[in-house]
Amino acid sequence: MISPWFLLPLLSLLSLLCPSLGAKPFSPSRFPSQNLGSLRPSADGHGSSSRGWETKYYTQTLDHFNYHPESYVTFRQKYLINAEHWGGAAGAAPIFVYTGNEGPIEVFAKNTGLMFDIAPKFGALLVFIEHRYYGTSIPFGSGALENATTAGYLSTSQALADFATLIVHLKRNLTAQKSPVVVFGGSYGGMLAAWFRLKYPEVAIGALASSAPILQIDPNFNPFVFTSIITNNFKSTSENCYRVIKNSWDEIDRAVASNTGKEKMEKLLKLCKGGAESAKDWIDEALTYVSMTDYPTPSNFLQPLPAYPVKQMCKAIDNPTTGNDTFAKLYGAMNIYYNYTGAAGECFNTSVSATERIDSDAWSWQTCTEIFLPTGANNNESMFQPSTGTNLEWMTELCYYYYYVKPRFFWLTTEFGASSIKTALKKFGSNIIFYNGLKDPWSGGGVLKSISKTLVAIVAPKGAHHVDLRASTRDDPKWLQDLRTSEVQIIKKWIRQYYRDNSISSSI
Amino acid sequence: MISPWFLLPLLSLLSLLCPSLGAKPFSPSRFPSQNLGSLRPSADGHGSSSRGWETKYYTQTLDHFNYHPESYVTFRQKYLINAEHWGGAAGAAPIFVYTGNEGPIEVFAKNTGLMFDIAPKFGALLVFIEHRYYGTSIPFGSGALENATTAGYLSTSQALADFATLIVHLKRNLTAQKSPVVVFGGSYGGMLAAWFRLKYPEVAIGALASSAPILQIDPNFNPFVFTSIITNNFKSTSENCYRVIKNSWDEIDRAVASNTGKEKMEKLLKLCKGGAESAKDWIDEALTYVSMTDYPTPSNFLQPLPAYPVKQMCKAIDNPTTGNDTFAKLYGAMNIYYNYTGAAGECFNTSVSATERIDSDAWSWQTCTEIFLPTGANNNESMFQPSTGTNLEWMTELCYYYYYVKPRFFWLTTEFGASSIKTALKKFGSNIIFYNGLKDPWSGGGVLKSISKTLVAIVAPKGAHHVDLRASTRDDPKWLQDLRTSEVQIIKKWIRQYYRDNSISSSI
Repeated sequence: MISPWFLLPLLSLLSLLCPSLGAKPFSPSRFPSQNLGSLRPSADGHGSSSRGWETKYYTQTLDHFNYHPESYVTFRQKYLINAEHWGGAAGAAPIFVYTGNEGPIEVFAKNTGLMFDIAPKFGALLVFIEHRYYGTSIPFGSGALENATTAGYLSTSQALADFATLIVHLKRNLTAQKSPVVVFGGSYGGMLAAWFRLKYPEVAIGALASSAPILQIDPNFNPFVFTSIITNNFKSTSENCYRVIKNSWDEIDRAVASNTGKEKMEKLLKLCKGGAESAKDWIDEALTYVSMTDYPTPSNFLQPLPAYPVKQMCKAIDNPTTGNDTFAKLYGAMNIYYNYTGAAGECFNTSVSATERIDSDAWSWQTCTEIFLPTGANNNESMFQPSTGTNLEWMTELCYYYYYVKPRFFWLTTEFGASSIKTALKKFGSNIIFYNGLKDPWSGGGVLKSISKTLVAIVAPKGAHHVDLRASTRDDPKWLQDLRTSEVQIIKKWIRQYYRDNSISSSI
Repeated sequence: MISPWFLLPLLSLLSLLCPSLGAKPFSPSRFPSQNLGSLRPSADGHGSSSRGWETKYYTQTLDHFNYHPESYVTFRQKYLINAEHWGGAAGAAPIFVYTGNEGPIEVFAKNTGLMFDIAPKFGALLVFIEHRYYGTSIPFGSGALENATTAGYLSTSQALADFATLIVHLKRNLTAQKSPVVVFGGSYGGMLAAWFRLKYPEVAIGALASSAPILQIDPNFNPFVFTSIITNNFKSTSENCYRVIKNSWDEIDRAVASNTGKEKMEKLLKLCKGGAESAKDWIDEALTYVSMTDYPTPSNFLQPLPAYPVKQMCKAIDNPTTGNDTFAKLYGAMNIYYNYTGAAGECFNTSVSATERIDSDAWSWQTCTEIFLPTGANNNESMFQPSTGTNLEWMTELCYYYYYVKPRFFWLTTEFGASSIKTALKKFGSNIIFYNGLKDPWSGGGVLKSISKTLVAIVAPKGAHHVDLRASTRDDPKWLQDLRTSEVQIIKKWIRQYYRDNSISSSI
């Protein structure tokens, strides 16, 4: 739990120069940015839709909030559109918009099968908008993140304004001004969807914010919550599994202290030569993401995984044939996450994160400027090694060193609200669904209780990270089917109400 | 109705270069930016409070929405504070914040006597925050508006974010996180107050938006509304008065066509030599502002004026001793607006606007970038000369010529909503009072019907521009007293509800 994958390069670099800094605990947010691998049609057909889209581009304004000459620079913002089931502008048929998060927009379109599944029911137009500085929607081109002058325009407020201007433009172009817009998003995209409804209530009549930890943007958020959810997931699956993992860290530390220990560990865990040194981060990642994507059906979201992967991991750990050998047990568990399809090769390279294939620079920038989600602390109950979480001062130094920017830790809490956002929303808000699955460590920062009749929390005790957004499969458990039905019913209610308010007749 | 005061310099300049452009009708918004003269204690004591304040400064961020290195530049934002009646942080006593508009903040503090009047009732802390680029709160110093590179950070979104960060900072500093904040504003300041409640519902529990034409930000807003309200005000006061004014323009045109005509006109209207040429704009200004500030008591807001100045103007026009002499009648009317205190000197200088003393450059910039409020059109019923309103293309050229910026005419409608903002607010909003006085031409762009139980329109048929915000006087008519009582009752309800929701005991 020391150095999350996406900041590994910074940490390695910095620890060379300032070893004392490198030693401090550092665990900012770790959103599961979808990997590019999932762009390939998945072999098992789960979790992605085969339905297509048309790729379009919008000439987007660089800076919506100032009138500096540079603000007039434009960039090509990609969006995907599917009008197969759209009822058309004349009938004011709805428009469903995915507010893209940290990755190429195709990844989100492929992993949000729900929108394709429900489009026919609503006669809805589907639109997926790419987030600025991700995919190909990069102002100033590919080197943009190399310095703050060109990277500086990457911010959540600008992204929300992009969505607003693009939606307004699109509606005008389609003469669909009367069509109601509902926004969808998962994870960071879910936060954007909720905030979009908050900031642009005239543009979107409602939002499905899936696994959106909007309460976690406060630097004062309890940093122990994240790992305690992972711990509980493993512990409730198997007490023994939890205990083996909890005790493994000291065993790894002891092994790494000697050459023979390292060799033994590398052999038993089938790590490539020298892999023992970075084994803890590598194991940490597997345990975290497997809890996050603890889906009830096989999936290929972050890694190809079987159904209920935490259960599978614990099964491997609890396997009596491994006796008391912690490393052999860990090998079995890691094999679930890093080698489910058997494609890992002869040994595991622990210095390569499974999610490293994506371009994480833009997300690191966002973490270093405004999106700070406290996660890294572990108490004695945690199955991870005790730690106290990230030191804000140290993070400030790190970000300044790397990007020449100073984080504005408390800006998002001012801009979007945090500790009392629920009270504020109660008095000033409507039409948001907050889905959260309690196996997902990000659920700790989510809205878990309904705030009002129209600000509805849907909590799935057995659910993981935005499982509701995934395409339905014939193996989906009943609770997941029911949950999606509820979401559809609520969205229908919003749209019907909108039609009534605007005297539009419709068959929805 | 051709060239409103604040763009006169641009027009004169441009008409020299492009006479064809200069001839087009051009009438963007004309907010009554308060003049610096009112900073002096007013002789009559009306419309301003004698209560004082402490002047403070906050180190404000230049750009809240991007992380470009220049965004980290700071400037000193002025705010005024009065804690005389504050109940204190321990009791979570309320904080009333004036969201400053286009002028030095002292002007608004002096002209918002209501806040001082009601502070004791609420035990409220009073705070008046200066708008960036006005007064002394100018990033890059006094030359900032000379080029787009330094002027570029003047925008409504940045101003709202300034208010939010300053309020959050202040509350933290005073350990007053639990104190409810209510924002107040008049005119553009009222728009800011309403938008602040819309965008920062967690920071302010409610807003009193006085004479805030939030519906008028749409470039498609009917440009005939503004002058038809002025016309109706004069017409309902005196049909003859309306007719004399309506017929005067042609008479002026005829007079200006010959030297003898000009001389005669200058003599009868007591204009300084050469004043006939610009007489129409000069008269236009008087008629517009006198309707806007048609207060029931003597005032010194834009100009020193008697009570009910429209009535006084029409009385002068209807004066039988002037017979059929239009210019003599107009002289009597202009004397009310330009010379009520008898300080005008020997002749009227028609090339100097009465409101020109203020620094209007920043407001011109705002008009040239995002705040475009259609006003300039006149139909046959209008008492002004027929015209078709402003041509957007021409304005784009003008603004680019003058400031090297292109207006983003439709940005505010996207950012804050316009045509359907009322529907949006109904579903997503609460705790805003929209006051409008029907004598005020800006009331045409205001919210004139209550949207919901907590989005309340207060309409005063006899009221003028944010008369509710002015200090009470013993001569206030009953309708004005009642109106202020209603506002106080509504604000009390918000605060009590807030205390109940947060289990805070209070005597309010």
